[in-house]
Amino acid sequence: MAIDPKRTVRELKELRERTADSNGAQRVAWSDVWLKAREWFTSKLDGLPVEHHYDAAGNHWITLQGESNKALLLGGHLDSVPNGGWLDGSLGVMSALEVLRGFAAKYNGRPPVTIRVVDWADEEGARFGRSLLGSSAFAGTHSIEADRGRTDKDAIRLEDALKRCGVEIDRFPDAQREQAHAAAYLELHIEQGPVLEAMDLPLGVVLGTKGVERHTITFHGQEAHSGSTPMAARRDALAAAAKLALEIRSIAGKHPDAVCTMGSVKTFPGIVTAVVGRCETTLDQRDLDTAVLARMYLEARDASERFAQEEKCTVEWSRIWNIEPIAFHPALIEFCEAAVREVAGKAHRLPSGPLHDAAEISRCGIPTVMMFVQSLRGISHNKIEDTKEEHLEMSVDALYRLAEKTAEWL
Amino acid sequence: MAIDPKRTVRELKELRERTADSNGAQRVAWSDVWLKAREWFTSKLDGLPVEHHYDAAGNHWITLQGESNKALLLGGHLDSVPNGGWLDGSLGVMSALEVLRGFAAKYNGRPPVTIRVVDWADEEGARFGRSLLGSSAFAGTHSIEADRGRTDKDAIRLEDALKRCGVEIDRFPDAQREQAHAAAYLELHIEQGPVLEAMDLPLGVVLGTKGVERHTITFHGQEAHSGSTPMAARRDALAAAAKLALEIRSIAGKHPDAVCTMGSVKTFPGIVTAVVGRCETTLDQRDLDTAVLARMYLEARDASERFAQEEKCTVEWSRIWNIEPIAFHPALIEFCEAAVREVAGKAHRLPSGPLHDAAEISRCGIPTVMMFVQSLRGISHNKIEDTKEEHLEMSVDALYRLAEKTAEWL
Repeated sequence: MAIDPKRTVRELKELRERTADSNGAQRVAWSDVWLKAREWFTSKLDGLPVEHHYDAAGNHWITLQGESNKALLLGGHLDSVPNGGWLDGSLGVMSALEVLRGFAAKYNGRPPVTIRVVDWADEEGARFGRSLLGSSAFAGTHSIEADRGRTDKDAIRLEDALKRCGVEIDRFPDAQREQAHAAAYLELHIEQGPVLEAMDLPLGVVLGTKGVERHTITFHGQEAHSGSTPMAARRDALAAAAKLALEIRSIAGKHPDAVCTMGSVKTFPGIVTAVVGRCETTLDQRDLDTAVLARMYLEARDASERFAQEEKCTVEWSRIWNIEPIAFHPALIEFCEAAVREVAGKAHRLPSGPLHDAAEISRCGIPTVMMFVQSLRGISHNKIEDTKEEHLEMSVDALYRLAEKTAEWL
Repeated sequence: MAIDPKRTVRELKELRERTADSNGAQRVAWSDVWLKAREWFTSKLDGLPVEHHYDAAGNHWITLQGESNKALLLGGHLDSVPNGGWLDGSLGVMSALEVLRGFAAKYNGRPPVTIRVVDWADEEGARFGRSLLGSSAFAGTHSIEADRGRTDKDAIRLEDALKRCGVEIDRFPDAQREQAHAAAYLELHIEQGPVLEAMDLPLGVVLGTKGVERHTITFHGQEAHSGSTPMAARRDALAAAAKLALEIRSIAGKHPDAVCTMGSVKTFPGIVTAVVGRCETTLDQRDLDTAVLARMYLEARDASERFAQEEKCTVEWSRIWNIEPIAFHPALIEFCEAAVREVAGKAHRLPSGPLHDAAEISRCGIPTVMMFVQSLRGISHNKIEDTKEEHLEMSVDALYRLAEKTAEWL
């Protein structure tokens, strides 16, 4: 075999040793630990017949020139959330490197197509609340003016944190130059959910990333004394919110992969002796189908208005953020399924609930697909994030096979 | 008429002028404004044939000695919450003074029984979170050791705040001496609820104060990613809490005067992108009937356990506080009803949801009753707290008639 999946696992452990403490991975983008992780990664390129450079948004590109300029891109991100896991993002980068090594070995340094590995900058947005920063610059969907003034918890501006790492936010559009000759993008990632583990499958084929509708919903009732206000005289904002918290489950339940989540509830005045006068909630809705997502959003709005009326309250909605569903490339989905079958015997197709850099790449028209490897307990963004080593090795093997099929297609 | 109810309204306005700012009444117990209010009240005793003193807990006693030592007590409290209303507590004190003046005038300074007006210290517990402080000392139900170390928001200890006003917490038990010869206690108060207004009645007869069960209820589920966790795989602590928030209304609804309130909900981690792993709620349950209160408590516990199970969560209860229902004296309830009918034509009997000093007096065996006057919009503890002047005048008249009937009974 041209690749050595055990080496990928060894390298991931090496990275963990250098960049994690007892609370987990600390490779937050634009931090010293992150820069150290990138430096360590660069050292792994020694002896490979590659060119490498950082683009205008801080994405790190490693290029193995092929017979054709047509480029097969593979990537991930070395940055993590604070107290993160050892695999989220870094598995994508290290497995891509292993695939590049495989192609370099198999074709004596000159494969039929160009192979490019990319380490995206700041996928997590952990410090400034802006995720997919580097890949959005590549895709040309950046939002420079909105982002430059973002501050971290120490009031440091995003613009200044980037400058410290040699990145000028005003030059972000130059990162789009890396799109030249890009013909396909592949990304291997841990699932970060419980589906594959529940099905006892090591690997999955990702259909795309779900669209997201994210809102703040506030119910206004009437604060009142808990002792002196009869039940029938109340305008209880919490009661309306509680009805919605339960109803969103029926709304999601009509569609196989849809999810609706009320993640935050705040009550005002929020004291034991007062009926809730104001209740602020958040709603996060996701599906891979644009029409389903739109319908779920409308159903939640209708339900909230019905519940407000029933409880003699009013309701107000405010959009936090939304993004359309991104469907991956049909041909690449087929190749991914074939590769997964070869390695694992069985394959399962599933959408990705979390967003990934792959969504940005797909949005700019480059054929894209992702592969998932099982997450133990479905947990990520936590030091207990883990995947069986055997499954990690299978995933590197399957990614290599997917890359071979894709290169042939190109 | 031996009394002048319009004077009571005038005096209440005078007190408001001296002790309220644009945010409402600021007569918080142990504050300078409160001391000023008490000083102003004392000035109203000039020329009356009374003795007055402060007891060991800071309660202010004004005594019109009668032919008999047997004493009829009437009272209220001059202290308010911060940004409070003009009537809560002070109506009780000022109307009691007017009744005393009436007895002094009618009987040339020597009524058949002794009339005592009391201004209880710190009914609200607004600063240290300990309500009914003075009246509990009188009743002998004080909790000195638990209370002395309570601190306000500036970390000042209750014990020290009292000392500044000349009150030694260790001498609290001496306040029980004031029980000597006490034969009945009457208190006029604003309703602080919407019942009398909804019935278009100026005055109500209070049956007693409801018992209270007050708990923190915490549901434990599993924090999970809102994008990657299928609906069926969730252990959503908020869903269990939402079911309980709705169920408590059915539990209360089985009994005519019962109330159940979920006043606070806190979600953890409480972010838009995570299923709620832990949900902390509060429950306040009240009824005048001990058996009803006990049943409501058990039903809420059972329901919470059922909902926790349905949502694959666990639930844990922690009692914040409880008090048994206090039923007022049957004979005094009859006198109160008669007095109200004489003045207002119609009477309505209702329990009090909020606690009052009268509950402490009743607990120590002294025959007690309260009279309510209508609150506009049912609102109190707020600068917009209000009652029609016409109703205030009627309430003073009715309290005087109740006092006459009670004195005769004694």
